[in-house]
This record gives sequence, C-alpha cells and structure tokens, in this order.
Amino acid sequence: PGSIAMKAGSLETIHQRVQVTYEYPVHFTDNVFSLNNDIVRDLCSASAARTSVKVLCVVDGGLSSALPELTGDIEAYFRDPRTTASLVREPILVAGGEAIKNDHRSVDEVLRAIEWHGIDRHSYVIAVGGGALLDMVGYAAAIAHRGVRLIRIPTTVLSQDDSGVGVKNSVNAFGKKNFLGTFAPPYAVINDMALLTRLPDRDWLSGVSEAVKVALLKDSAFFDYLESNASGLIERDVETMRQVVYRSAQLHLNHIATSGDPFEFGSSRPLDFGHWSAHKLEQISDYRWRHGEAVSIGISLDSTYAYLSGMLGEADWKRIINLFESLDLPIYADELATARSPETGRLVVLDGLNEFREHLGGELTIMLLHGIGQGVEVHEMDEARIIESIEMLRQRSNARSFETEEVTHAG
Amino acid sequence: PGSIAMKAGSLETIHQRVQVTYEYPVHFTDNVFSLNNDIVRDLCSASAARTSVKVLCVVDGGLSSALPELTGDIEAYFRDPRTTASLVREPILVAGGEAIKNDHRSVDEVLRAIEWHGIDRHSYVIAVGGGALLDMVGYAAAIAHRGVRLIRIPTTVLSQDDSGVGVKNSVNAFGKKNFLGTFAPPYAVINDMALLTRLPDRDWLSGVSEAVKVALLKDSAFFDYLESNASGLIERDVETMRQVVYRSAQLHLNHIATSGDPFEFGSSRPLDFGHWSAHKLEQISDYRWRHGEAVSIGISLDSTYAYLSGMLGEADWKRIINLFESLDLPIYADELATARSPETGRLVVLDGLNEFREHLGGELTIMLLHGIGQGVEVHEMDEARIIESIEMLRQRSNARSFETEEVTHAG
Repeated sequence: PGSIAMKAGSLETIHQRVQVTYEYPVHFTDNVFSLNNDIVRDLCSASAARTSVKVLCVVDGGLSSALPELTGDIEAYFRDPRTTASLVREPILVAGGEAIKNDHRSVDEVLRAIEWHGIDRHSYVIAVGGGALLDMVGYAAAIAHRGVRLIRIPTTVLSQDDSGVGVKNSVNAFGKKNFLGTFAPPYAVINDMALLTRLPDRDWLSGVSEAVKVALLKDSAFFDYLESNASGLIERDVETMRQVVYRSAQLHLNHIATSGDPFEFGSSRPLDFGHWSAHKLEQISDYRWRHGEAVSIGISLDSTYAYLSGMLGEADWKRIINLFESLDLPIYADELATARSPETGRLVVLDGLNEFREHLGGELTIMLLHGIGQGVEVHEMDEARIIESIEMLRQRSNARSFETEEVTHAG
Repeated sequence: PGSIAMKAGSLETIHQRVQVTYEYPVHFTDNVFSLNNDIVRDLCSASAARTSVKVLCVVDGGLSSALPELTGDIEAYFRDPRTTASLVREPILVAGGEAIKNDHRSVDEVLRAIEWHGIDRHSYVIAVGGGALLDMVGYAAAIAHRGVRLIRIPTTVLSQDDSGVGVKNSVNAFGKKNFLGTFAPPYAVINDMALLTRLPDRDWLSGVSEAVKVALLKDSAFFDYLESNASGLIERDVETMRQVVYRSAQLHLNHIATSGDPFEFGSSRPLDFGHWSAHKLEQISDYRWRHGEAVSIGISLDSTYAYLSGMLGEADWKRIINLFESLDLPIYADELATARSPETGRLVVLDGLNEFREHLGGELTIMLLHGIGQGVEVHEMDEARIIESIEMLRQRSNARSFETEEVTHAG
C-alpha cells in the first residue's frame, strides 16, 4: 500500500558526503582602527535585511595598557557615522598569554557576553591580541550558537605570520595544551603592521621562527631572503618585517588550502616541524620560553637530528643554526638536557614525541628536512640520536655564549 | 637584497578558500551488538600502523535499565576475539532526555574519560541513546582534541529518522536550548531497528512527526505512504517503521548533502518547518511535550497558518491534520493559548519567532507550505493570523477530544 518510491530490498547503507567551503580574506594594513581605515566597517556592514549589526570586541589587556589609546580608538571607530555596525559594550579586556587558555572563566566571560548581548551567527566578535587570546576567543566564538562570526586582529609577529591566519582554536584542559578546541575558519583576519612596531624586541623576533619554519619546509628563496635580511629584522626594519609576515602568512595559508587535509583527519601535521619538542619544552619550562623561541629550539633539534641521520647536508644544517643565531633566537634550552623523570631518569622532552602522536592519533608522523625548502615525513625517531642532537646543540650554544662573552669583555 | 619571489606592491588581501569533505556511512541493521554483527568491528578495525584501537562507550542509563542485557552485550562484543578494538572501560551510563543537555557535568564526565583513557583523534566514542544524549556526547567528542571519532547509535525513532543522522551537536547553556555546539559530522551512524521495538508507544509514534515534516517539504509520495500506513505504525508494525525511518533519514541526508549550506552559514533552516513554535512550546511546557509531539503541533500550526494565508489548499491542510490525528500525534497544546507574558499579556509562543531568527541570525526565514511536498520560505508571519491559527486548532482539537469521549462512553 502507498505509492512510495522505495524498493523493498533497498535498506542498504547510505554513504553520506558533505562538502563545506569556507572563504575568508586576510587583510594587510596599518592602523586598522584609524577613522579612515574602511576594512572593519566594510566587513561588518549592514545589509538590506539587517540595518543594525552588532559587534563584541575582546582586547588583550596587556596590549591595552601598552597602548592606552587603543580601546578609545576602537570606540571612536564604531561611533563614527560611516560605521554602521555598533559595539554592544565597551571592549572586554582579558589577560593575554598562555595563562588565558588555562583559565576557563575567560571562555565563560566571552560566552556570557555573546549570550547577554544577543550576538548571533550574523553578528561579529572581534578579537585583538596574540595567539593565545585569539585561540581562547576563537573557541568561545566557535561553540556559541555553533559559531558566530570571528574577526581576528593578531597583534604579534607569531600570530600574524602563522596561527592567527589559520583554521584552529583551542583552550587547555586537564593540564593538556589545546585539549579542547575546534576547526573553525575565521570570518576575516586583519594583520595590522603598526601594532607590531610596539612589541618588545623579544616578541618582535620570536615570531620569526615560524617564518623560518615554513621557509625550510616550502620555499628556499624565502629562506635566502631571511638570511639576507636578518640584520634588518634585528634592527626592527618595518618594511622587512612586513615582507616576512606576508610571505609566511601566504605560505601557511597556501598549505592549508592545498594540503588536502585542512582539518587534520589524517595523522600528519606537516606545518608542525620542530613542534613535538617545542610544545613539551614550553610545558616543562612553565612557559619561560615564548612559543616562537621554543620553535627555534625545536627546529634546531630536528635539523640537527636530520643532519646526524644523513638526511640533511652539513652546509644546510649550518645555515639553519646560523640563521637562528643571527636572529638572536635560541637553539638550545637547558631543560632539554636536565629535565628528567624522577622515577626513570629519562629525559622528559622525549615524552613530547608520544604526546605529539597522541593528539592527532594514528601513526607517529614527524616532519624532518631533506634540504632547505624540502620537508620530509618520517614515522620514527631514534632516542639515542635525539639525545646526541641535544648534546651537540648544548656545546654549540655554550661555545657561542662564550664567544659573546668574549666580545662583551673586549668591548 | 635576497632573492625572494615577492613583488614590492604585492601586499594585497589574500582570499583564502578551504574545502573540507566529510564522508560517513549510515547503516541500517538489527541487533548491532549481537556477536555476529560485523558493523561496529569493521568500523573500528585495527590497521597496520595501529594494532590496538580504543573505544569509549556512553549509553543511555534509562535504556540500560529497560534492556538490562545491553551493557553486557556491548562488553561481550568487544571481548569477542573477532573484535580487534577494545573498550577502555565499562560503558559510561548517563541519564537520557533533555535534562542531560542542561547539566554540564555530563559533558565534563565524557571529556574526563576521553582524556583519562587517551582517546585520540583516531580512537572511537560510541554513543548509544536518544537525540539529547547523542547531542551531548557528540559535543564532547567534537571539542576534545578538536574532534575524536564519533559513532552514533540512535535508539529512538526521532533520532534515527532525523537528528541522529545529521551534522550537529549541542548542549543547553544560559537557559537557551542548543546555545553551545558545533557542526561535526559523525564517523558513522548505525540505525538499529531492534532497539526501536522496545520503545513505549509514545516514543515510537512521536518520532514519526519528523518523517511527516520531511515528506511535507520534499516528497509527496512519502506523505501518501505515511497516510496509507498510519494504522501499521499505530499497530507497531516493524517493517512499516523500517521503511519510514529509512526514507526519512534518506531525505534528511540528501537535503544536508545537496542544500549547499550544510553548516547553516545563511539565515535559512529549511528542515526546521514547524520548529519555531515547537522549540518554544517544549520550553514553556517544561518539556512535558516530547520534541516529536511539539513538532506535530508546530507543523499543524504553520500548516494552518499557510492555509489561512491562502498558500495551502484546504484539502491538503485537512490531509495534514488528519494524518497527525490518525498517528495519535497532537495538533494543539493548551500552552499555545494560555501562556502569556505577565507584563504585556502577549502569548509567549510568539517570542519563539524572534528566538528562532536570533539563533541563526540575519533575516527571519520561516519554512511554510505551498502544497504537500512543496516547502516555501517566507520572511514574515502575521501575529494576528498566528493567533487565529492557534484558535482554529484549539477548536478542532477539542471537537476531536469530545468525539473520542463520546466513543469511550458509548464503549
């Protein structure tokens, strides 16, 4: 009975296939909240269907202290009659840095503001800060209403040239970095170079290590550029940094768009060269090392390992170590050689390998190098050789410290 | 200086485009945990790279009470030597029903188990329960490590024929239904018909309202089938229900795959016919109505509205109301006419329209009907006509109750 167009024996498995396309612009500008900069007002413009557009702004409190005019500039920008969108409240100030990802009250505060002010999936959250703040606010924006629109304004070299342009967010939980998070491409990213000029030297330089990383994996010409322009970066030349941030962001974005696995369903994280030890080093040093510094150390370690394994030539290995040194970036940390398990005496950093595997799951997959601009994946690392690599970097680092001391004494 | 291949004036906006493809099977079976059923063991099979596969199972505690052998069957299934995957612990039992989505401790419990037992992105969480449990466990699985593999085993008609095969998860927060959640397609769905045979009549029938909904929007032949087979459903004919669940799931899946907006970036939720008032009715009745019952009421209301607006012919309108009545599904709830704002006297259900708009944001978009099998979207609804529709359904419902009473007295 009934004219249903269904065969009796048709209860076979349905193979569902869902394709989702995300598109977002990454803008490069100066002084994003100056009254004549149209980028934010164009992004949040009203439409025929909706005459009032709501915006919730979350700003790094440390940045706001360093730039006391910032929140006033943001408020003035949204009061300007050319801006049709409106702030639902004054910018929320939250602490920056990794601590923000450990404190779940910060996520709650952002969620509460989203709920209280009726920020919906066609309203905007603007996050202004470094990578940790963007991760935390991005997580809140991604889970509220299954995702409200997020505009990221990264304020560090590291977030402008790497994490801030990507598709992830996260907070820490159960003592594990990035345990909670989602893949959620932003609505837009705005890289404001003027914000970088206010960074302390340490933050200005440490973010360059992610540019070195992506150059090593993808683009030897960019590595050449970094070598030739290291002194410009040290001297805080803005136009050089602009080129470095742009090219690094472009290479990261291109990888995400074309790798075939933007949401990491597989076991491979090809952009995480040097990161298995970097993540662990951040943790065992209680975040004494900036992420970018941990990455220059981690890349130095894995490059040395690749050199000792016969994969990477000596000349290339030396160029890598020399580049970090000429950028005043560390190649070694005492914690690598001294932090040991109280029970077994084993170096704690070695646990980073398994933790790295565990986060994605599946087979251990580590990116190493065949040459500059040529990444290659391996599925095991030899512990004795890792320890040998650490020792080699310790000696090199001490030798250089000694040299530096000599020079200082001579001067 | 440097050979970087970057033009000086090239700092233009980068337009990033990320495409993600999700694929998952929806299986139809009986007795999924009988030892000879291979579906789960094939899904969680070991690979060359990974010889031990971990599984965390979360089961509806109410179901487990009703089917005391269920958890034992699950444990035996994973102890069977043919199953290479292993349970990391005995199944976690959590309460089913909407309450589970209000209690954040349940999400925490699942997250803690995922962390404690080292469930990674290549391990499995199996959720066995109704729509609310699947939403809650799915949310936890989606945010842990940015998503571990989720196998859904829906145990109600409603979750097998609609929500359990889709791409969403959620929990409630700040008193708002589904305030927190993500879009996260499952790794697999297994619809086990044998589980449905144990449902109380009320749950057996109420899930059919989502099948009626999708038939009304997409497939008039399926509506004919439901009309012709309503008595079979009332009499709990398993083969009829199997056909209904299959066709409803297929139509829902096909819509998600082909609508062009599976993650609802736009303002439209074409499958949520009748849902603006259904969601509100669930809330104002304190979940006295099952979701499926609220949906039959909501569809009746919007169909009546479409009839009174001249969009839907009288014959089609009557067929819809008659079908719900012949399925013993409600077409009216007193709360629609009696729940009023203490301040303004306005019917509370009318707030559902704005709340519906707010969740997605953008323009109000409501699905109505031009005919059976022909949904059509509108962007406004007239309050006076909604009130008129409620009154019409009240009268119809009372008349029918009276008839029923007469019959009872006569018997």
